[in-house]
Amino acid sequence: MPNNQNLTLAELCHGLDVEIKGDANCRITGVCTVQKGKPDHITFLQNPHYRKYLATTAASAVILSADYAADCQTNAIITRDPYFTWAKIAAQFSDTPRAVPGIHPSAVIGQHSQIDPTASIGAHCVLGDYVQIGAHTVIAAGCNIGEYTQIGAETRLDANVTVYHRIVIGARVHINSGTVIGSEGFGIAKHKGAWVKVPQLGRVVIEDNVDIGANCSIDRGAIEDTIIAHGVQIDNLVQVAHNVRIGAHTAIAGCVGIAGSTTIGSNCLVGGQAGFVGHIEVADNVAIMGGTAVSKSITAPGIYASGIGGVVTNAQRRKNSARVMRLGQLQARIAELEKALSLGVKENEE
Amino acid sequence: MPNNQNLTLAELCHGLDVEIKGDANCRITGVCTVQKGKPDHITFLQNPHYRKYLATTAASAVILSADYAADCQTNAIITRDPYFTWAKIAAQFSDTPRAVPGIHPSAVIGQHSQIDPTASIGAHCVLGDYVQIGAHTVIAAGCNIGEYTQIGAETRLDANVTVYHRIVIGARVHINSGTVIGSEGFGIAKHKGAWVKVPQLGRVVIEDNVDIGANCSIDRGAIEDTIIAHGVQIDNLVQVAHNVRIGAHTAIAGCVGIAGSTTIGSNCLVGGQAGFVGHIEVADNVAIMGGTAVSKSITAPGIYASGIGGVVTNAQRRKNSARVMRLGQLQARIAELEKALSLGVKENEE
Amino acid sequence: MPNNQNLTLAELCHGLDVEIKGDANCRITGVCTVQKGKPDHITFLQNPHYRKYLATTAASAVILSADYAADCQTNAIITRDPYFTWAKIAAQFSDTPRAVPGIHPSAVIGQHSQIDPTASIGAHCVLGDYVQIGAHTVIAAGCNIGEYTQIGAETRLDANVTVYHRIVIGARVHINSGTVIGSEGFGIAKHKGAWVKVPQLGRVVIEDNVDIGANCSIDRGAIEDTIIAHGVQIDNLVQVAHNVRIGAHTAIAGCVGIAGSTTIGSNCLVGGQAGFVGHIEVADNVAIMGGTAVSKSITAPGIYASGIGGVVTNAQRRKNSARVMRLGQLQARIAELEKALSLGVKENEE
Repeated sequence: MPNNQNLTLAELCHGLDVEIKGDANCRITGVCTVQKGKPDHITFLQNPHYRKYLATTAASAVILSADYAADCQTNAIITRDPYFTWAKIAAQFSDTPRAVPGIHPSAVIGQHSQIDPTASIGAHCVLGDYVQIGAHTVIAAGCNIGEYTQIGAETRLDANVTVYHRIVIGARVHINSGTVIGSEGFGIAKHKGAWVKVPQLGRVVIEDNVDIGANCSIDRGAIEDTIIAHGVQIDNLVQVAHNVRIGAHTAIAGCVGIAGSTTIGSNCLVGGQAGFVGHIEVADNVAIMGGTAVSKSITAPGIYASGIGGVVTNAQRRKNSARVMRLGQLQARIAELEKALSLGVKENEE
Repeated sequence: MPNNQNLTLAELCHGLDVEIKGDANCRITGVCTVQKGKPDHITFLQNPHYRKYLATTAASAVILSADYAADCQTNAIITRDPYFTWAKIAAQFSDTPRAVPGIHPSAVIGQHSQIDPTASIGAHCVLGDYVQIGAHTVIAAGCNIGEYTQIGAETRLDANVTVYHRIVIGARVHINSGTVIGSEGFGIAKHKGAWVKVPQLGRVVIEDNVDIGANCSIDRGAIEDTIIAHGVQIDNLVQVAHNVRIGAHTAIAGCVGIAGSTTIGSNCLVGGQAGFVGHIEVADNVAIMGGTAVSKSITAPGIYASGIGGVVTNAQRRKNSARVMRLGQLQARIAELEKALSLGVKENEE
Repeated sequence: MPNNQNLTLAELCHGLDVEIKGDANCRITGVCTVQKGKPDHITFLQNPHYRKYLATTAASAVILSADYAADCQTNAIITRDPYFTWAKIAAQFSDTPRAVPGIHPSAVIGQHSQIDPTASIGAHCVLGDYVQIGAHTVIAAGCNIGEYTQIGAETRLDANVTVYHRIVIGARVHINSGTVIGSEGFGIAKHKGAWVKVPQLGRVVIEDNVDIGANCSIDRGAIEDTIIAHGVQIDNLVQVAHNVRIGAHTAIAGCVGIAGSTTIGSNCLVGGQAGFVGHIEVADNVAIMGGTAVSKSITAPGIYASGIGGVVTNAQRRKNSARVMRLGQLQARIAELEKALSLGVKENEE
């Protein structure tokens, strides 16, 4: 396997705000989980559920907070933020292939393009005229980039990404395979019984440090731009319609759909398969539970969800359903009881 | 930027059934929204919500209906259908790149193919044997088209579209990037504990004037064909299973899933993330709200939805949920009250 | 059309455990449905709903169970499992193009790769260094395969599939177009207000006989592997997050999302648009209804669903919703009645 890393704990922790408890010279060759620990490997503990494995893990080092340090029977890297420290240390074991700078001879490059000599353009890529690619940016094999599109520095497009014309992508952006940026928004006008397509003349603007998963689609704006602000994190198979604006540092899980002209604030969390209707505004610092149908604007921070009941057996679902369907009948019986007792009727059924 | 349009209002309205109020010689160089109007730019008013901006917009012209004309302090283009008129006028500012007729030297073309000399086949396209491509059709870079597939005139496949073998696509069809047409339907038969794939021998037939978004998948039929009738509009990330038939001029928003052998009528509207079970029929002129689970056939026109409640806080959802779970208890208490009052019991709980 | 098949019933049934009733020498040239039967074509009957067509179908042969044989007025192929027998017979009419062994001259192949001479690598494919491809495997045009990835024998990747580095794919696997295997899992850690990406160092392991639809995304594991066990069937547009494990012979319909670290057992059935939260376990032999939000572990076999009510008109939905919202009020009225009758109050509202 390509990554033959072999570093001491001291080397791994260089520059990080951590304390090493145990043998700083212990050599580490890979990563593992705490429950399936391996000698010479490093792991981390974030979820208290796994605390019980600390006493017996075969890992040679565990990244954890001071609270759990006493339970750890091997070398410990003590930090206030174990998951962040893990991210930094695990990155040293990354085996993501490194791209070679330069343009692969099979790539087709348009006229007047400006490709930084440190950028890498993979095999069978197609770049339109006037495309700009920043320093150290990697465009992996099979990507298509339309005319006048600008891509910043240190950005990575994985294989088979499609970017339409006149799109703006910032620096340190990562886009996974199969994702489409800048497709036509779904703007249609009915005229004499048939749909007429409304031209989609805006762009998509993706700011710096954005990460987008696989097989997403982000439509270009109709008049103004669709905007993905800096630091946004988007998972796989997410649909972002035209004119949507997603605020900085918002994270969106897989299979979410966001309809046209909706604005989502910054620092929001959106669970998987949630859906947003069009033309609404969601405030900053809002968390949306997975599967939620966001059917109106949300003006205050908080945790939001829609629907009734969690997972139940199909029989239980039918019973709930039947009971809800009979609620009118229940109301009538109560009214009759009240009448019998000559209590005031507070009926306000529509 | 590529589009350096500069036309008078009179020129822009040429051939359209509209009335110009103000300076017909006013020059227009681009499009804008009414709320963010710009000098020398044109906009439109359709949604009454934005009427308030008419008095102050900096736009040099607004397309609107006669009802709002009095509010408009700039040049007005008066029409009975502002959104349709906008579609026609905005199209004159389109900057979608024009493809050059001919076959890019890097494209790989099968034997016995018939490609109209006015068609454009982009870089790194791969076309199988016996493929037919109509006049003025554009197959953008990176598309793959299987054997015996026929594509009509003036159709546009954006970059990285995949069309399997023996598919039929009509004229003036537009398919956005990443979409897959003609993949295998999900037909599986269990035999001795393992799944056996049932051959999918039908085609996909896409009629004229259909528009399909990005990253959709439309499966080929099992025996007969999957059919997308003329004028259908499909947004992004939509799944159309085998044997589905979608009637003319139906519009389907993003992230919708349609299971196998379901028929949807013509002139229907389907909201985002709606789902259809298999083997049902939906009548013409049906509107399905976003997120609806269509679990049985719909035989009459109307607006349909499923589920209870809109977006509520998570705490409210839990309260609703708990109350529904306690409905049986509520029923029991009412029965006891009725017994105490010697009223007839109308219990019919399953 | 490419498939000019012409076989007798006896030839079609060779090696199958069936009984031919009628003319075993009847020649068959294609397949049809029972309701739209055609002379010289073969069909099958599985769904009793279509039994009524047996008396009049124009098909020259019908595959069916002994129970229905008396109704059949044409040649009959009698079997205990008509759908399985259909799968075997229909396969003889398949017109899926056959790939030519060898590497297309436009493909770009990395160093140290091991490609079996009987394998087929299509036009414009890009394979990284150290890739292994088994015997009779077909990699269709436009596929991208990352470094160190291993693909077994008799596997088929349709056009424009993307497989990242270091992925393991077994034998007799089929992956439809547009699918992405091995994208980065959605692991992010917040640090000083911004998200930091957590390296995703695991692989995806796809065992033998797995079938995956179009435009799916299957993320690589964070530390250990994402695992799709043998015989799993996955439909289109399905999201499988990092560290997920799907047990053998489980079938998953379209548009399903499975969040990270969730385990699904073997022999499960998952309906379309179902969603699974992360870090849960679903037992073997569980069926999940379409659209179900699986929000907690399921420990016993059975049929599960979530939500209330099926498809209703929008007006009915609003009425249900309003009634649920008024349940607290209903409870209060019952309490008052009980008070009036001096019955014990069994209130336990939160």
